[in-house]
Amino acid sequence: MTKVASRKGHMTLPVEVGQEDVVLDLYQRWQADALRDSDGTSMPDSLAEQDSDIYSVMCLVRADQDYANQHPEYLHRKYLMSFPVTAMSDSVTIQPLDGYSKDKYELDDDSDPKQWWEVRNRTTGEVISVDNWSFDAQTQSVEVINVTRYHEYTVTFMARQVWDSVSMYNALTNDWDGPRIKSLDPYHPECRAHLLKHFQHWLETHPNTTVVRFTTFAFLFVIDTGEQNQDIYRDWTGYGETVSPRALQDFEKRFGYKLSPEDFVDAGYYNGTYKVPSQQYRDWMTFVQEFVVEFAAELVKMAHDAGKRTAMFQGDHWIGTEPFLASYQQIGIDINVGAVEDGVALRRLTDSGGDQIREARFYPYFFPDVFSEGNDPVVESMSNWTKIRRAMLQKPLDRIGYGGYLSLANKFPHFIDHVTDISQQFGEYLDNTQRTESQKLPGKVAVLSAWGEARSWLQNQARDQRFYVPPRPDVMELVGNNLLECLSGLPFDVEFISFDDIKQNGIDPEIKVIINTGDANSAWSGDECWDDADIIVKLREFVALGGGLLGVSDPSAYQKNGRYFQLGDVFGLEKETSLTMGRVAMPLEIAQDHYLSQFITGNEDFGNASYVYPQAQDLTVIAAQGQHLAFTARNYGQGRAVYLGNLPFTMDNARLLQYVLIWLAQQESTSFSWLSANPNVDVAFYPHTNKAAAVNFSDQPQTAMVCNTEGRVVEISLEPYQWIWLDN
Amino acid sequence: MTKVASRKGHMTLPVEVGQEDVVLDLYQRWQADALRDSDGTSMPDSLAEQDSDIYSVMCLVRADQDYANQHPEYLHRKYLMSFPVTAMSDSVTIQPLDGYSKDKYELDDDSDPKQWWEVRNRTTGEVISVDNWSFDAQTQSVEVINVTRYHEYTVTFMARQVWDSVSMYNALTNDWDGPRIKSLDPYHPECRAHLLKHFQHWLETHPNTTVVRFTTFAFLFVIDTGEQNQDIYRDWTGYGETVSPRALQDFEKRFGYKLSPEDFVDAGYYNGTYKVPSQQYRDWMTFVQEFVVEFAAELVKMAHDAGKRTAMFQGDHWIGTEPFLASYQQIGIDINVGAVEDGVALRRLTDSGGDQIREARFYPYFFPDVFSEGNDPVVESMSNWTKIRRAMLQKPLDRIGYGGYLSLANKFPHFIDHVTDISQQFGEYLDNTQRTESQKLPGKVAVLSAWGEARSWLQNQARDQRFYVPPRPDVMELVGNNLLECLSGLPFDVEFISFDDIKQNGIDPEIKVIINTGDANSAWSGDECWDDADIIVKLREFVALGGGLLGVSDPSAYQKNGRYFQLGDVFGLEKETSLTMGRVAMPLEIAQDHYLSQFITGNEDFGNASYVYPQAQDLTVIAAQGQHLAFTARNYGQGRAVYLGNLPFTMDNARLLQYVLIWLAQQESTSFSWLSANPNVDVAFYPHTNKAAAVNFSDQPQTAMVCNTEGRVVEISLEPYQWIWLDN
Repeated sequence: MTKVASRKGHMTLPVEVGQEDVVLDLYQRWQADALRDSDGTSMPDSLAEQDSDIYSVMCLVRADQDYANQHPEYLHRKYLMSFPVTAMSDSVTIQPLDGYSKDKYELDDDSDPKQWWEVRNRTTGEVISVDNWSFDAQTQSVEVINVTRYHEYTVTFMARQVWDSVSMYNALTNDWDGPRIKSLDPYHPECRAHLLKHFQHWLETHPNTTVVRFTTFAFLFVIDTGEQNQDIYRDWTGYGETVSPRALQDFEKRFGYKLSPEDFVDAGYYNGTYKVPSQQYRDWMTFVQEFVVEFAAELVKMAHDAGKRTAMFQGDHWIGTEPFLASYQQIGIDINVGAVEDGVALRRLTDSGGDQIREARFYPYFFPDVFSEGNDPVVESMSNWTKIRRAMLQKPLDRIGYGGYLSLANKFPHFIDHVTDISQQFGEYLDNTQRTESQKLPGKVAVLSAWGEARSWLQNQARDQRFYVPPRPDVMELVGNNLLECLSGLPFDVEFISFDDIKQNGIDPEIKVIINTGDANSAWSGDECWDDADIIVKLREFVALGGGLLGVSDPSAYQKNGRYFQLGDVFGLEKETSLTMGRVAMPLEIAQDHYLSQFITGNEDFGNASYVYPQAQDLTVIAAQGQHLAFTARNYGQGRAVYLGNLPFTMDNARLLQYVLIWLAQQESTSFSWLSANPNVDVAFYPHTNKAAAVNFSDQPQTAMVCNTEGRVVEISLEPYQWIWLDN
Repeated sequence: MTKVASRKGHMTLPVEVGQEDVVLDLYQRWQADALRDSDGTSMPDSLAEQDSDIYSVMCLVRADQDYANQHPEYLHRKYLMSFPVTAMSDSVTIQPLDGYSKDKYELDDDSDPKQWWEVRNRTTGEVISVDNWSFDAQTQSVEVINVTRYHEYTVTFMARQVWDSVSMYNALTNDWDGPRIKSLDPYHPECRAHLLKHFQHWLETHPNTTVVRFTTFAFLFVIDTGEQNQDIYRDWTGYGETVSPRALQDFEKRFGYKLSPEDFVDAGYYNGTYKVPSQQYRDWMTFVQEFVVEFAAELVKMAHDAGKRTAMFQGDHWIGTEPFLASYQQIGIDINVGAVEDGVALRRLTDSGGDQIREARFYPYFFPDVFSEGNDPVVESMSNWTKIRRAMLQKPLDRIGYGGYLSLANKFPHFIDHVTDISQQFGEYLDNTQRTESQKLPGKVAVLSAWGEARSWLQNQARDQRFYVPPRPDVMELVGNNLLECLSGLPFDVEFISFDDIKQNGIDPEIKVIINTGDANSAWSGDECWDDADIIVKLREFVALGGGLLGVSDPSAYQKNGRYFQLGDVFGLEKETSLTMGRVAMPLEIAQDHYLSQFITGNEDFGNASYVYPQAQDLTVIAAQGQHLAFTARNYGQGRAVYLGNLPFTMDNARLLQYVLIWLAQQESTSFSWLSANPNVDVAFYPHTNKAAAVNFSDQPQTAMVCNTEGRVVEISLEPYQWIWLDN
C-alpha cells in the first residue's frame, strides 16, 4: 500500500474500513488533506498513520453507553405537554405519553411530579392546583379531579429520553441495527466528571488523531417524536432539550426568578425559533449558553493540551454554542464545520465572527437514503453547489468536506467525477481569492427581526413550510418566501439586527437599507415587537432622512391603532385581514416608467396573492396579481420604501432584489464595476488579488456584459454551470 | 287610450311620462297589477287614474329641498376620521376634509369642535387634550401642538352632508343633471314637524296613490366619498350616517353613558358590519332603531289614515328599520320591497317575521348603466333569476317588480320577452304554491355569527371582496366564500343565531346542525366572541351529544390558549398562522370510502389553499389542495363535525352542502322524497297543494331522478333553464 502523498489540499474525506484503496484514489482526485471517520464508520489503522490530518468524531455525551445505562438520572430530559384531553365527566385521566414515542421517552417520575410537572386547563389557561391531581406511577397516568366538563386538560411533564434522536434517525431511516444510543446530560457534576475522565482516556488512546471533531458538546436541537416513532416537531435551533431539575434550580439562583413548565411548553408552541422569544426563554438560552461554553472550553483545552486541534460541527448536540455571539470565542475552537446545502447555510458558516477555519460539509451525506439504486446523487449535489458557489463569492470559505460511507458514493462514478470537479473549482477559488473578500456595494444592508444577530443567516420559515412534505427529514428544504437565499449571493454587506438593537443603540449610520421579511406572527416579521411607538418612530425617521426600507410578506404586521402593517404609512399600503372589506377597491395602474419597472421580466415569482392593497395616493405599483399588490415602491421624506408580496428563491428574484436594494440605497445612478445584470450569472471582484469570478447558475450557456474597474466593458461567455476567473 | 285591464297580476311596473303605450302593452304582457314612479320618473296623469295599484315613491328626507337649503343645521351629519398626518416637527396641521369629497362634505363647525370633535395620536392611540389643538374656521384646519415627531395624528370631525349619496350616484353614474339633493335629519323635532306637515300635504295632493312606497324613512346606509367623488367605503347596513349632537345627547340620557367620536370612527374601521360590533355600537343601533321605528310608524299611520297602504323599500334610507327584529312590526308597513339580485337577497326579503306582502324588485334597474348599446341586460337578469328561483322554492314570495326608465328597457325587445317569461313563471309559481312553503328536511340548521338574527341572510363578505373591482358599484357581487348563496336554495329550515343567544338561551333542541362560516377577525366567524369558555363548552357539548358542526374558512378562529381554531379539537384540525411551522407535515390520505366521498365530483370549488392541517389522528380527509385541507369530516362524541376550506357559490358546491348537512344531521340513511341529486336541478315539494317544482339552473338539458312521497321514482327531464310543475 502506497503512502498518502504529501499534504496539499482542502478537502476532508470520509474513510471506511475495507475501502482503503478507494480512499487513496479519492484522496488525490478530490484534493483531500484530511481524513475523517463518521457516524457509523471508523478509521482504518493503515490510514490513521498517514501524513494527513486525521479528524476523529467525538460526541462525548453519547460516548459511554455503559455509564448511560447505569445512570438514568443523568439522561437528557425535556418538558413535553401531553396532548389535550377533554373532560367528559367530573374527573379526567391523562396518560402523559399518549401520542409520544414509547421507544424514546419515559416519564421522568424521579423528578417529583408535584414539584416539576404542571396540570393546566387549556380552555381557560388556568393552572390546576396540585391538590386536584395525582400521578399514579403504577399506571403512569395523571388523574385530575374537580374538572369542568368539556374543558381540555394537559399535563406538562418531564420526559426522560432513552433513545437519542440521531441514533433513532439512523435506525429508522438508514436501517442501522446497533444498540439504541442514550445521551448523557453533562450539567450534572458527577456525570460531567465522568465524561471528562472518559474524554481524557480517549485523547490518550487516539494518538493519530490531529483534529478532534466535536459532534458536538452537550444538548441536541429539538426533535419531538410521535407514537409511531415519526418526527412530529423539529426546531434545529431550539433549546427545549436542555432541561433538568438541577439546571432549573441553578437558573433561579442566577436570574432571581423561577421558570415554570409552561415557559418551556409554551401552550404547545415550544418556543419555536420562528416565534418571538419570551424574556424567560431568552434568559434560559443565556443560562444554557453560559454552561455549554464553559464545558466546551474545558474539552477544547484538554484537546489542545493533548496536542490536537479541535473542530466543532454546527449541528447535532450544538445547542448552547452560538457562533454569532461573542461568547462563542471563549470556547477556543479551531475549525467551524457546518453542514451546507445552500447559500444561506454557507453564509451561516462563513459570516460569524472569530478567526476559525471554516469548513463546509456538503450534502448529500453518503447514506443509503440518497446513494441508492435509481437515484442520482449528482442532481441534489449540483442543485446545492450552484447555490453555495454564489454565496462563496461573497464570503471566504476555507475548506470543504463530505461525510458518510465512501463505499456507497463509490458506486456512483458520475458522482465521483462531479465531486472531483467541485473540489477542483474550490481549489481555483482558494488560489484566486487568497481567502480574501470580494468587493461589495457601498453601505450596509440590515435584516431586522426579533432575533437579530443571534440568528443571522438562519432560514426564515414561512407558513408554506407546514404544508411541504420533505423527501428527506434531515435536510431543511425551505419553501415559500426566501429572501435570504436570494441575498446570500449578492454583493452587499449584510448584517442582522434586532428590535432591541434599534431601541438601545439606534440605527448604525452605515446602514442604507433595512429589510423586514417574514410572515405575520413570526420572529422574522417581529409580531409584538411592533407594538412599540419608539421602534415605529425610529424606522419612520430612518426612512424620512434618506434610508431605504424593504418589506416582504408581512412587514411590521401587528394589529393595533387602526393598522395591521404598523409601517403601512411608509410603504403606502395595508393588508386586508377582514377588517376593511368595505373599503372600495380601485383598479390598479401598473407603472411602466419607474426605475424598477425595467427589471420586471415576467419571470419573477411573487408567491401567493398578498391580500395587500394600496393606501397612499402616491404609491407606485410595479407588479400585481389581480388587485393584490406584489411589488410597490414609494418615496417617504428623503427615503424610499419597497414592498414585495413574497420572494421565493429564484435567480430572477435574486437579480430583482439586487436592483431593489440599489434603488432603496439611492444608488441607481452609480455605475458599479463587475456587477452582473444577467439573472443566471453572478460576478464577483476581488480587489486584493485583482481577479474576477463569473459563475453560471444555469444548465444553459450564458453571456454577461460587465464593466471592469477601469470602466471597460467585458463580455463574459459561460458554458452551462461554468465557473471562470478573469483578470481585471 | 284604452283603460288598463281589470286588475289580475303580481308585478309592479315602472312608468314614465311619454311611455303610456308601452306601459299599457307591458301591463298585460308582464301581468302587472301595480304602477309605480321611480327616482327620476313621474306618473303620467292618464295612468294615475287607472284601475291598478299606484305606488308612489316617497323619500321624505329628500322631499323638500327648499327647506333643506334653508336649514343646514338639519342636514345629515356623520363622524369622519381625517386621514392620518405624520408629525415632522413640533406641531402638525390637519385639513380634516383632505381626501374626502368637497362636493359632498362640509365641516360641521356649528357643532363646537372642542366639544364634538376629537384629535388622536394614532401611533399610541392617545386622545390629545383640547388644550393642545385648535380649529381655525378661516382655513378650515386643525393645528395640533406639542406633538411627537413621526407620530401620526387624526382629527375625528363631524361632517355635514351637502349632497345626498343617492343623488350623487345618479349624477355621476347616470349623468343626471338635476340639482344636488340634500337629505334632512328628522331627529331634530323642528325638522321632523316640518317633514310631517310636508307629508300630510303630499298625501292630500296624491289622491290616486294607493300605496306609499317609502324609500325610505330617515338615514342612508354608509357611503363615504373620496376627493374625486369616488366611493371609498360602503356598508349597506351601517349606522354611521345617523349622528347629530342632539341625538348623542339623548343617547347619553337613554343609556347612561356618553359615546365618543371614536365609538363611531373606530380607528378608521367605522364599525363595518363584517366586524364584531362593540357594545357601544350595538347600543347606538338600538337607539337609532327606537327613533326610526317610532318616526316611521307615525308616517305609516298618516298614510293609513289617508286611506293608503304603505310599502317600504329595504334600501336607501332604511337604516334603523330591521325587518328581522321584532320592533319592525311596530311600524305597521303593509308591503316589504327588497332589491333582489340573488338567492340570499331573496331570503333576506322572504324570511323575516310579520305578515307583510313581500315584493322583490329585480335587477337590472332600467338605468343607462345596463341598458346601453352593446350590453345585453338579459345576461345579468338570467344569472340573477336562476339564483332567485332556487330560493323562491324555499320561502314564499308574493310579488315581483322592476324600477327605472321603461323607455330604456323597451329598446331591448329580447329583454322584454325575457321578463314576460319570468313573470309567467312567477304566476305559475303563485298558482301552484298558493303562497305556501315547500317541504323541508327535518330539524333546523343554524348559522352562528356575532350578529345572529339581526343580520339574517346578509351576504357575508370575505377578504377576497376587497380585491374585486365590481363593474357596477350599486350591485353587490359577492366573491369568495359564499355558503349562504349555496344554502338559500336548499330544503332546510334555516335560522341565524348569535353567541349571545347561545349564552343566554342555550341551543334550541330543534337545531341539528350549527354552521360557523367566515374569515378570521370577522363578525361572521366571531373573532373575540370565541374568547369565552362558556361558548366553547356549549358547542362542544352540542356536538358531543349528537349535534352537527360545520365550519367554513376560519371557524372559531381566535388565537388563545394554544389554539387558533378554538373548536379545533372538535374539527380535528388547526390553521397555520406561523406559530406551528416546526410541526412536521405528514402526507395526507384522502378517504375514498366515507359517506361524503361519493359526492366529490372534482367540480367542487374550495377556493384558495386553506393553510389548515390535520391535528386529530381520526380525522377523515375527503378533499385537499396539496397538503392543505379542503374538506374533512370527523366524529366527536355522538356528533359530527365537517370542515370546508371555502365554499364559493356554484351548483356543485350547493349540492355538496346539501349532503354535508344531511350527514351532519345523521340523516344519511333516510330516503327523502323530492330531493334532487343533480347539482343543476333543484326540486321542491309543496305538501299543501301536492305539487312539485323542478328548475334547471343550467343552459343545458338536465335529468334528475327523485322519489315522490309514495317512494315511486320520478324521472324529470328539463330543457335549458326550464321550470316545470309536477303532480306528486
